[in-house]
Amino acid sequence: MTPVVGIIMGSDSDLPVMKKAAEMLDQLKVPYELTIVSAHRTPDRLTDYAKSAAGKGLKVIIAGAGGSAHLPGMVAAQTVLPVIGVPVQTKALGGVDSLYSIVQMPPGIPVATVAINGALNAGLLAAKILAASDEALASRVEAYSLELKEMVERKAEKLETVGYEKYLEEM
Amino acid sequence: MTPVVGIIMGSDSDLPVMKKAAEMLDQLKVPYELTIVSAHRTPDRLTDYAKSAAGKGLKVIIAGAGGSAHLPGMVAAQTVLPVIGVPVQTKALGGVDSLYSIVQMPPGIPVATVAINGALNAGLLAAKILAASDEALASRVEAYSLELKEMVERKAEKLETVGYEKYLEEM
Amino acid sequence: MTPVVGIIMGSDSDLPVMKKAAEMLDQLKVPYELTIVSAHRTPDRLTDYAKSAAGKGLKVIIAGAGGSAHLPGMVAAQTVLPVIGVPVQTKALGGVDSLYSIVQMPPGIPVATVAINGALNAGLLAAKILAASDEALASRVEAYSLELKEMVERKAEKLETVGYEKYLEEM
Amino acid sequence: MTPVVGIIMGSDSDLPVMKKAAEMLDQLKVPYELTIVSAHRTPDRLTDYAKSAAGKGLKVIIAGAGGSAHLPGMVAAQTVLPVIGVPVQTKALGGVDSLYSIVQMPPGIPVATVAINGALNAGLLAAKILAASDEALASRVEAYSLELKEMVERKAEKLETVGYEKYLEEM
Amino acid sequence: MTPVVGIIMGSDSDLPVMKKAAEMLDQLKVPYELTIVSAHRTPDRLTDYAKSAAGKGLKVIIAGAGGSAHLPGMVAAQTVLPVIGVPVQTKALGGVDSLYSIVQMPPGIPVATVAINGALNAGLLAAKILAASDEALASRVEAYSLELKEMVERKAEKLETVGYEKYLEEM
Amino acid sequence: MTPVVGIIMGSDSDLPVMKKAAEMLDQLKVPYELTIVSAHRTPDRLTDYAKSAAGKGLKVIIAGAGGSAHLPGMVAAQTVLPVIGVPVQTKALGGVDSLYSIVQMPPGIPVATVAINGALNAGLLAAKILAASDEALASRVEAYSLELKEMVERKAEKLETVGYEKYLEEM
Amino acid sequence: MTPVVGIIMGSDSDLPVMKKAAEMLDQLKVPYELTIVSAHRTPDRLTDYAKSAAGKGLKVIIAGAGGSAHLPGMVAAQTVLPVIGVPVQTKALGGVDSLYSIVQMPPGIPVATVAINGALNAGLLAAKILAASDEALASRVEAYSLELKEMVERKAEKLETVGYEKYLEEM
Amino acid sequence: MTPVVGIIMGSDSDLPVMKKAAEMLDQLKVPYELTIVSAHRTPDRLTDYAKSAAGKGLKVIIAGAGGSAHLPGMVAAQTVLPVIGVPVQTKALGGVDSLYSIVQMPPGIPVATVAINGALNAGLLAAKILAASDEALASRVEAYSLELKEMVERKAEKLETVGYEKYLEEM
Repeated sequence: MTPVVGIIMGSDSDLPVMKKAAEMLDQLKVPYELTIVSAHRTPDRLTDYAKSAAGKGLKVIIAGAGGSAHLPGMVAAQTVLPVIGVPVQTKALGGVDSLYSIVQMPPGIPVATVAINGALNAGLLAAKILAASDEALASRVEAYSLELKEMVERKAEKLETVGYEKYLEEM
Repeated sequence: MTPVVGIIMGSDSDLPVMKKAAEMLDQLKVPYELTIVSAHRTPDRLTDYAKSAAGKGLKVIIAGAGGSAHLPGMVAAQTVLPVIGVPVQTKALGGVDSLYSIVQMPPGIPVATVAINGALNAGLLAAKILAASDEALASRVEAYSLELKEMVERKAEKLETVGYEKYLEEM
Repeated sequence: MTPVVGIIMGSDSDLPVMKKAAEMLDQLKVPYELTIVSAHRTPDRLTDYAKSAAGKGLKVIIAGAGGSAHLPGMVAAQTVLPVIGVPVQTKALGGVDSLYSIVQMPPGIPVATVAINGALNAGLLAAKILAASDEALASRVEAYSLELKEMVERKAEKLETVGYEKYLEEM
Repeated sequence: MTPVVGIIMGSDSDLPVMKKAAEMLDQLKVPYELTIVSAHRTPDRLTDYAKSAAGKGLKVIIAGAGGSAHLPGMVAAQTVLPVIGVPVQTKALGGVDSLYSIVQMPPGIPVATVAINGALNAGLLAAKILAASDEALASRVEAYSLELKEMVERKAEKLETVGYEKYLEEM
Repeated sequence: MTPVVGIIMGSDSDLPVMKKAAEMLDQLKVPYELTIVSAHRTPDRLTDYAKSAAGKGLKVIIAGAGGSAHLPGMVAAQTVLPVIGVPVQTKALGGVDSLYSIVQMPPGIPVATVAINGALNAGLLAAKILAASDEALASRVEAYSLELKEMVERKAEKLETVGYEKYLEEM
Repeated sequence: MTPVVGIIMGSDSDLPVMKKAAEMLDQLKVPYELTIVSAHRTPDRLTDYAKSAAGKGLKVIIAGAGGSAHLPGMVAAQTVLPVIGVPVQTKALGGVDSLYSIVQMPPGIPVATVAINGALNAGLLAAKILAASDEALASRVEAYSLELKEMVERKAEKLETVGYEKYLEEM
Repeated sequence: MTPVVGIIMGSDSDLPVMKKAAEMLDQLKVPYELTIVSAHRTPDRLTDYAKSAAGKGLKVIIAGAGGSAHLPGMVAAQTVLPVIGVPVQTKALGGVDSLYSIVQMPPGIPVATVAINGALNAGLLAAKILAASDEALASRVEAYSLELKEMVERKAEKLETVGYEKYLEEM
Repeated sequence: MTPVVGIIMGSDSDLPVMKKAAEMLDQLKVPYELTIVSAHRTPDRLTDYAKSAAGKGLKVIIAGAGGSAHLPGMVAAQTVLPVIGVPVQTKALGGVDSLYSIVQMPPGIPVATVAINGALNAGLLAAKILAASDEALASRVEAYSLELKEMVERKAEKLETVGYEKYLEEM
């Protein structure tokens, strides 16, 4: 199937975080592509990627980066597609630098920012965006939410039944 | 026209910020509704709003709040629609409290967070999301981006022509 | 005995922190119940829990959560009972996100916030609240404070006697 | 009526903030006393106040302070009563210093912390604590919550009716 | 004279800050050009500017921006010239967002960051860089430092002579 | 009388803050000198000042500075005298930059840091240091503390007598 | 010898940090005493300690604490002696909470604050304060500074001689 | 070859970070010297180093330090050469203290600040500064940028070819 979501990241060191976006889209059966695009090391590649994204059928872009995280904003500046930004946690500052770099965009160029290391949610948000015009996908998203709810309920029931001491032992 | 975007805010004190989302949607000819829903003072109203949103034709929800800003996340928890969160600036902490409350959502319930007081971008992001399945809207969004670009170019030209001293006098 | 304190948490990953509230209440002989209620994954469960809490005899609710920690505030919005919030430490931001989400509540819906990971104190605070109309409990709380005081005094005496080098070896 | 809540603050410069606790208690018909107790300038007065509080009939203490805000914690260290701490906003650091000083209490001595400048909520929290054993007060607290809810609903209705431009003009 | 320093900023709202770089270069007789280049609104203009900078004789680029301040880093990514970044103060976060966006660049693409609103120092740093191969300029930079030193000494002498009360009156 | 305290500051813009150190020392009858020494603009003057301080009879140095506040630490590095550092509030960062620059000194070169803008306390701390070997001064310091205590007590008495509404009117 | 410095800490968990103050004083031959005094668990002990400190011959007090670190300020409130505060690092917030609690004291009650975990410097600062009226001690402090200087010079010489690769291998 | 870059650091504990500046310069064939200069422990050595730097042929100085990081600014105060500052990460505060100490320099004494632990970029920035008057070096810098670009492209190609799961296994 033609990818409708593009997942990009500034460096392969972001992959252990960003793969959760891919896994979420896999689970929801949303076709995607995934690659590395560095705003700073490959600025032309970034421009090419952003400008060609809509033309090749992408509907949403997910971009993850850390530190001076310019990738999501620079992609957003060069495409009409909605861009989701994932601030990747950093060693020195915990990812506050990534978060501020991504979320504090000026009027005219929004980036839909999720939590630090929140790649799973980036995948899910992309699906929710696509689901606006895809009822089958909307159903799968709702089913996923229901699963989460039931998982919590099962855990709650177990916790109430066995007590917290036993529950902790079995964790 | 039936509203496709719902703009809600926690308090009417957020209105001077949040109206920019409405103005942006007006400019892009996206029909919207706008009201007050307090997560803390009217929790039932919040639940009703979130649960009925998709059914009445909304495609995207924009929610703005400040401080312990629970509105965007609690709406997101109760609808399949994508939710855009606007952290409203606060007196004591500048809006870092609002930002963290909105953006740091757990896996499974994303909120598409924009900048502190970034309501204009929330409106634009909503339009970009809708434009994925609305080519006419996509064209209007692109036209808006072009306007921004040309405005910068006009300013740059003037600045280069008259010099910064004269430019500043005329600002 | 009928529980008078309800301890809830957003996820079972909060349990290693939140169990200290239970242990404190055990020590002070305050009956409690403990379960998982996710504001974001089980919002209806949250509403049910909060609205039924007073009716089933609870007098105080302790709610712990991390990140966009909406649980304490959303429970407080739906019950007349005092709610104690425990900000759970987070990996990226150390729990500042949890703290701000919980403590910065708007006028009309207070959450009695304790320290990051301060579940023991949440249990003790609940006991102090209950002790206002329970002299026997007040005595147990005072006895606990006395124990703390005596423990410090014993340690101080040992430290003064053996010197810090020896004391450190034996720690 | 004998005061059941003691409102204290570190300096009369905190009074414009702390008076909101008094106003809230007035509205809910909870008798209180209000005075200045400086942890640093009048430490003996603090000790006297804390140690005599329970004996003279107080059930809850509200303590507000800014900067190195030691008052709430030091009172809590010397009374079995629940202590509510109000971090007062500061010029240089916005009140983060006050908040950390008050909320980060060690195990054994909780302070129920509210938002920066959150004195109204401190008053309301005190009332909620007292309401646990006072049904009439519980009803007044519920009535107050209802008022807040209705105020939001009236504002929402007006906003939906007149539109945001007109609403803003009339604010 | 052909400009050797390019001063660019993301928006004309940055001009009141950035003009100090121009004034410093004027004072040190370093020819410069000054214009607006928005990373987000005019990304192609940014690419053109960065790629042509060295060719047209520029030796150093000074770039100022606020919030998600991507301009300095994106210019640095596309030129071999040294780039000096000026974080512009922001309303909500004081410029910490600008500072982190500019300074936390990944290995391979440095931005020489100065203080928040430190445009004067950006101009001076550019001059120091150029002075490495321009002795006359080095002398002017040294003369400027000497002036600063003498100004402090004159103020110190006056303060010691007239006393601080009189000095403050005359400030 | 020969000055025993040296008060220095990085710039005359720090004088409105730093004069409070002088006023405190005046009140306690401690002879002092006061001048401007810029670590960055007059580094030789700093070295001279620090190295000659003990020899000319100074016993304590108070140094105030803002931003990259190097003055207190660099003086401390060049004298055996105790150095008290006053972090001066800054526009962008509120003085957190000044505070971190002054307080986070490495092992071997302490700076006794007081609060942001805490020059009064710097004067008082200098007096407390001198009072260790000057009983008359110790008495004046104690008298000053007593005055503070009595001032609080008078205010408390007034507040209790007239009530907070009247008290606020008369403030 | 009679102790002239009192080292106290809020908990024996602070001992691994605070022992460095003792070691520094040992090295400089300054007699001291060391014990545990908890502001919150043993408030009466704190009052006794602070009020009797000057009378039993102490000249300086070093107080270390973490989190809501009230110990240094509350001791300073009850003695004429200079008090040195050591903010102890905390798990969640890195010690910023301790630092703000200790350094942001109100006018009239200074605490001489050192770096987070800066107990060695607290010991050295105490010695510098005592050295103001003890020439032999002043000489030992100077000798210590000289040692530090020579240690750096030896390391620098080695680094210049063997090169950084070899130097790192041997570290 | 005569060194044209001087790399200094406040302590040999900074060497594991700062060596990356040396490695970068080695790779670009820029001759450098490297040593330890402590602003606080060897202030005279700092003055000598800074004042003699230009005379002995250095063109750029790279200075790294942590905590109250005064070294870069104090060197900048005493030389006409451009100074690059490297904030070294710290245990308690992650290096925010180092960053603020280095970057927030007052008008007249700029320090070209790079990222926390950004020594590699400091080396590269020094090379870019030197390349302004050294075409061969400019070519080597460009070649290095090209290498970075190609490395990203190779990784991207591999990732696109093998998929993220396989890619992660092989990392």
